[in-house]
Amino acid sequence: MKLATLKNGERDGSLVVVSRDLSKCQFVPGIAKTMQQALDKWEVVAHELEQVYAQLNTGNAIEALPFDPMLCHSPLPRAFQWVDGSGYVNHVELVRKARGAEMPKEFWVEPLMYQGGSDSFIGPTDPILAADEGWGIDFEAEIAVITGDVPLGSSVDQAGRHIRLLMLVNDVSLRNLIPLELAKGFGFVQSKPATSFSPVAITPDELGHAWRDGKVHLPLVIHHNDKLFGQPNAGVDMTFNFARMIAHVAKTRELGAGSIVGAGTVSNVDRSTGSGCIAERRCLEVIAQGKATTPFMQFGDQIRIEMFDGNNESVFGAIDQVVEKYSFP
Amino acid sequence: MKLATLKNGERDGSLVVVSRDLSKCQFVPGIAKTMQQALDKWEVVAHELEQVYAQLNTGNAIEALPFDPMLCHSPLPRAFQWVDGSGYVNHVELVRKARGAEMPKEFWVEPLMYQGGSDSFIGPTDPILAADEGWGIDFEAEIAVITGDVPLGSSVDQAGRHIRLLMLVNDVSLRNLIPLELAKGFGFVQSKPATSFSPVAITPDELGHAWRDGKVHLPLVIHHNDKLFGQPNAGVDMTFNFARMIAHVAKTRELGAGSIVGAGTVSNVDRSTGSGCIAERRCLEVIAQGKATTPFMQFGDQIRIEMFDGNNESVFGAIDQVVEKYSFP
Repeated sequence: MKLATLKNGERDGSLVVVSRDLSKCQFVPGIAKTMQQALDKWEVVAHELEQVYAQLNTGNAIEALPFDPMLCHSPLPRAFQWVDGSGYVNHVELVRKARGAEMPKEFWVEPLMYQGGSDSFIGPTDPILAADEGWGIDFEAEIAVITGDVPLGSSVDQAGRHIRLLMLVNDVSLRNLIPLELAKGFGFVQSKPATSFSPVAITPDELGHAWRDGKVHLPLVIHHNDKLFGQPNAGVDMTFNFARMIAHVAKTRELGAGSIVGAGTVSNVDRSTGSGCIAERRCLEVIAQGKATTPFMQFGDQIRIEMFDGNNESVFGAIDQVVEKYSFP
Repeated sequence: MKLATLKNGERDGSLVVVSRDLSKCQFVPGIAKTMQQALDKWEVVAHELEQVYAQLNTGNAIEALPFDPMLCHSPLPRAFQWVDGSGYVNHVELVRKARGAEMPKEFWVEPLMYQGGSDSFIGPTDPILAADEGWGIDFEAEIAVITGDVPLGSSVDQAGRHIRLLMLVNDVSLRNLIPLELAKGFGFVQSKPATSFSPVAITPDELGHAWRDGKVHLPLVIHHNDKLFGQPNAGVDMTFNFARMIAHVAKTRELGAGSIVGAGTVSNVDRSTGSGCIAERRCLEVIAQGKATTPFMQFGDQIRIEMFDGNNESVFGAIDQVVEKYSFP
């Protein structure tokens, strides 16, 4: 099943069911008005939503409308939790190597996670606003899940059963604000501006065999200014799967329905697949040439993040954003 | 005006207006069903809520019910943002001193903040659940504000104008999980279990002259197992006021209505006022005697956090929690 949220002037938008080919959609106010409402009572509404989805796919939905990703907000325009991890540990190791630091060995056995801001996401085609190019504006191409209620102390197996939906993520980062902020030891606040997600969130069964072991076994295709920047396979070199990361958070507190758990920048040890963020490419340049040559994003730069199935069809629709200068009021 | 959320079996509970003396309350479904709804349209509903409040205080509210803090959830049972700062820098300096480390001088000029989990708060009298006493269970007595919409790039002055409500906080911390987690540099995830807030949230005008300079100039009274543990004045030694901390977050992203911004453990340089958390007392013991003697909380321990006005009336009602062992499923 595929779901999206259309902008409607309200904070949480309107939930729509989207056809598999992303051509049509249907409002479902009789089932759930918003994505959060659907997640809050998933056990009750999932079956009804699936019925609408089946009608859309067979062309039998009488109230179907054309689906336009430009009208989408992020599937959850705001969420009660956005927690992101470094599932692709080789990426972390590479970043450390570039700055001459050794990565602690525990990073291979315990997920590295941070709590992100979730009060005001932006839509998949909304501009990335920044006041200063000097902040080092970077994209991070990721995959995230949305959970149901996850009880306190859930095991990895138990945690995996609470995965409801999957999305793509652009976890925008301000690279030049990060060193000072991380040096303080309290994680990211200013260095992580508003995050955006793919137009469509999907249930894992949509991926068929590409969803296994709690991982998405498909390339994540990233274009920067219309040039292919990377297409790392999200199922390769993922040290911690989604279930493991959810369980990490659930060790000391429950997760509420609608919690978004990300797996960090997708990164393959095979560097010929390219990178999921500019920072990684710059690290590779430092290691190979002694200095980074690829600049961070400039005003006007475009970033497009998408994933295709075996038939070359877009699974989630594209995150497609342009960086814009924001003037302080 | 005083507002609270009563548990009703739903995730967001029911909004009630509470009389100034905390004796009576009234449901206001015709104005806003939940606290978040009220915050989402504050400009529209605040005046109507104030009218109900006036009726409650003059005894003219015909649908008034007795107010029982035991029936309360936290004012926002779940929130789209909970970001906490170290407003009382002397506390941070003390903690560093106890472990022989110098605090970076920037901490006096730039707030130290972290993003907390906000998807599942617990109520003011709910038990603090932990699987293991060895985690080093500690309370942290704090004050927080709830904001309206704060535009990206707001100045300190502008940010201060978006403070809607004030609450007390128990920012429970698992001290023995913190060192490993902070060493990773990504902030707190496992070491901060579910947070709780005072039964009642109040508009700043309720404090009269005690609310000035973006600070609450009253002692925060903390009892641990019925013994006075501390009564530091929240208006004293607060290096960064609430407006400054909101502006810090808003530098690179807007804050959505209902964002909770905390000021960290209240702490006075005058140590005779006691401490807002066990960790601080232990640091003082280390500095004075070479070792910490006060243990962290044990199962069955009680913590009570409250604030009184000039007439010795409880302003927010009390956070009053007991630590309970939680068995993993």
